[in-house]
Amino acid sequence: MRLRYITGGVTAARGFKAAGVHAGIKASKPDLALIVSEPPAVAAGTFTTNKVKAAPVRLCQERLKRSGMAGAIVVNSGSANACTGPRGLQDARRTAEIAAAELGVPAEAVLVCSTGTIGKPLPMDKIEKGIKLAAAKLSRAGGATAARAIMTTDTRPKEVAVEVLIDGRRVRVGGMAKGAGMISPNMATMLAFLTTDAAVERRALQTCLQRAVAGSFNRITVDGDMSTNDTVILLANGLAGNRLLTPGHAEWRTFQAAVEAVTLGLAFKIVKDGEGATKFVTVTVKGAKSEADARKVARAVGNSLLVKTSWYGGDPNWGRIIAAVGYSGAAVREEKIDIRFAGKLAVRGGQKAPKFALKTLEKILAKRSFSIEIDLGLGSWKHTVYTCDCSEEYVKINAAYMT
Amino acid sequence: MRLRYITGGVTAARGFKAAGVHAGIKASKPDLALIVSEPPAVAAGTFTTNKVKAAPVRLCQERLKRSGMAGAIVVNSGSANACTGPRGLQDARRTAEIAAAELGVPAEAVLVCSTGTIGKPLPMDKIEKGIKLAAAKLSRAGGATAARAIMTTDTRPKEVAVEVLIDGRRVRVGGMAKGAGMISPNMATMLAFLTTDAAVERRALQTCLQRAVAGSFNRITVDGDMSTNDTVILLANGLAGNRLLTPGHAEWRTFQAAVEAVTLGLAFKIVKDGEGATKFVTVTVKGAKSEADARKVARAVGNSLLVKTSWYGGDPNWGRIIAAVGYSGAAVREEKIDIRFAGKLAVRGGQKAPKFALKTLEKILAKRSFSIEIDLGLGSWKHTVYTCDCSEEYVKINAAYMT
Repeated sequence: MRLRYITGGVTAARGFKAAGVHAGIKASKPDLALIVSEPPAVAAGTFTTNKVKAAPVRLCQERLKRSGMAGAIVVNSGSANACTGPRGLQDARRTAEIAAAELGVPAEAVLVCSTGTIGKPLPMDKIEKGIKLAAAKLSRAGGATAARAIMTTDTRPKEVAVEVLIDGRRVRVGGMAKGAGMISPNMATMLAFLTTDAAVERRALQTCLQRAVAGSFNRITVDGDMSTNDTVILLANGLAGNRLLTPGHAEWRTFQAAVEAVTLGLAFKIVKDGEGATKFVTVTVKGAKSEADARKVARAVGNSLLVKTSWYGGDPNWGRIIAAVGYSGAAVREEKIDIRFAGKLAVRGGQKAPKFALKTLEKILAKRSFSIEIDLGLGSWKHTVYTCDCSEEYVKINAAYMT
Repeated sequence: MRLRYITGGVTAARGFKAAGVHAGIKASKPDLALIVSEPPAVAAGTFTTNKVKAAPVRLCQERLKRSGMAGAIVVNSGSANACTGPRGLQDARRTAEIAAAELGVPAEAVLVCSTGTIGKPLPMDKIEKGIKLAAAKLSRAGGATAARAIMTTDTRPKEVAVEVLIDGRRVRVGGMAKGAGMISPNMATMLAFLTTDAAVERRALQTCLQRAVAGSFNRITVDGDMSTNDTVILLANGLAGNRLLTPGHAEWRTFQAAVEAVTLGLAFKIVKDGEGATKFVTVTVKGAKSEADARKVARAVGNSLLVKTSWYGGDPNWGRIIAAVGYSGAAVREEKIDIRFAGKLAVRGGQKAPKFALKTLEKILAKRSFSIEIDLGLGSWKHTVYTCDCSEEYVKINAAYMT
């Protein structure tokens, strides 16, 4: 059996239940999600590289390092619990304790994530009420409500799930994510929760997740800002009954591909729902002297505000792309640079290709989704980022987020 | 005599004439400026660090390196003459030749600068017509029309001039600039032309200019994009009759201060006229472990789209500032960070200061101009950048620049 997309998200795999409720952190929208694995799962995680880290990020890092097992995850939106000092860490621990008591698991087996405004303490009475409400509503069908409860400026919930066959067993991997703004190639203001019923060795699970994140969430950019709360967690509870997966397993690649299908699917949904985004753009850089150079160029182009606004306007301004290539910090030689839009050679040797009409470029840029390939002509390294345009709507959303 | 601001710009100093005309590169606005020094002047310049450099930038660099003297500068807006290959360089040379013939000076003594859209060849017939027109209109009063002719998305011309006393002689330094968008801390889509009647030794002039640019044009940021055409040129024709200025001259600092007053004045005008900008913000970082760290933090904050949109909305979202501090790459410790807005302590030890009301912050952010001081609490290095907010207007302007 090949990889098959199925409906559902974080509860697609066996043994996972979830719920999303309105705890009252936000005025009226769902704002607290609970994900539970029975039995407790092996857990892997990747986190923001921001030096200013939210309290729940520090708590998760500590718990994954220690036991590497988790039975539940509590996620709230509406407040990031970042820059909240010792009280913030206490509140994160207390959140875990409340959920542990409610679910009958050790507090150390509960992970906690927050997203929302920085600098406000968590309203613990509401968190407590929300956890109790969610615990009472846990179900296999609850994945969809959980996906809604973690949204901030997202306009729609994001879920992906796939099924593969490993050792003759049906293995499912599913997940949900939130994103929208503050999205940069090193994670983002994003949270993603992945679950699988595969049996996976702990260290192998971490390797698998890191690889999947490197090829997906670390390749998307909306505005180049990086948050204090970014977290991706993957739980594997083993209910599929396959032989324990490690990189030595004959079907390891099948499992890796399944996880990557979910992370990439969620990453695309994040970019497509980028704050105010109207276009999805794939920027591939090839012919670079090193992988780092390819990455620098792809990110410079994907983050350039001038490039992103020109995409929004459908303006055939390829000059802004080549200017970003030039200031990226990578080794480049102007006269070697070729640029293709949707496969069509627009820039050749650093100049407009003789036969290329700007009208053609205008037509490509008018589409909701297009690709740009930049060939530096200096080597054989490549890198791809997935990004979006920047509209007035982005400014409107972010000029009035907190108040 | 102390430093005194006077009216005028590029023709404030003795021996300089200028003119701005409509050559027809743009549909109806002035688009070509000519600046002439009689006698020919010692010349210094600083240029974009973008690896993709416009043809005129390469020409200027070559000429300043060779002779270090200039009698005239031709500047056109409407077309950047960047990514135009060998033809671009030919066109830049030809532009200098036309002006040289018209003015009766050697072609090597003419500098050429362009700004506008990347990738279109210069319309040489129009350039020729424009140069002849401008040569016929050269005058001491022409500085103001020249300042208009170099504008692109600028909403107003930018001129600054000062007068100081050196060796008992009145020395004047004046200048004009264009900016508005694609402004990053390493120069910008900006051109600036400075003139002085001081007598200055060639190498000393270059040192003086570099220092002045480091403290002004290299500290401003509008959108973090860096252009292919950024150029600052300083001409010194010696007509003031002072003893030749070198760093050993007793009044060297007076001269340096005069040049800095002009560059900083022009830099402020560029930020205040930033595309769609409604607010002028001074970001000072202190307490850094190194100068590089102070710079990294100041630039990360000054370039953050999330921070800039929150300023625009008057949203008291200090969390976005601390998030940018965290991802800047500098050494930071969350619990050491203090942030002051207009001198008022808002964040203390990485958390909201207990007595600080968000209402106070809202009031400060409602002003057209305010300062932010970030104390990292780790060392004694500091750095300042001058920046602006980001409004829907920025997106509108840049979504439709070329078409």
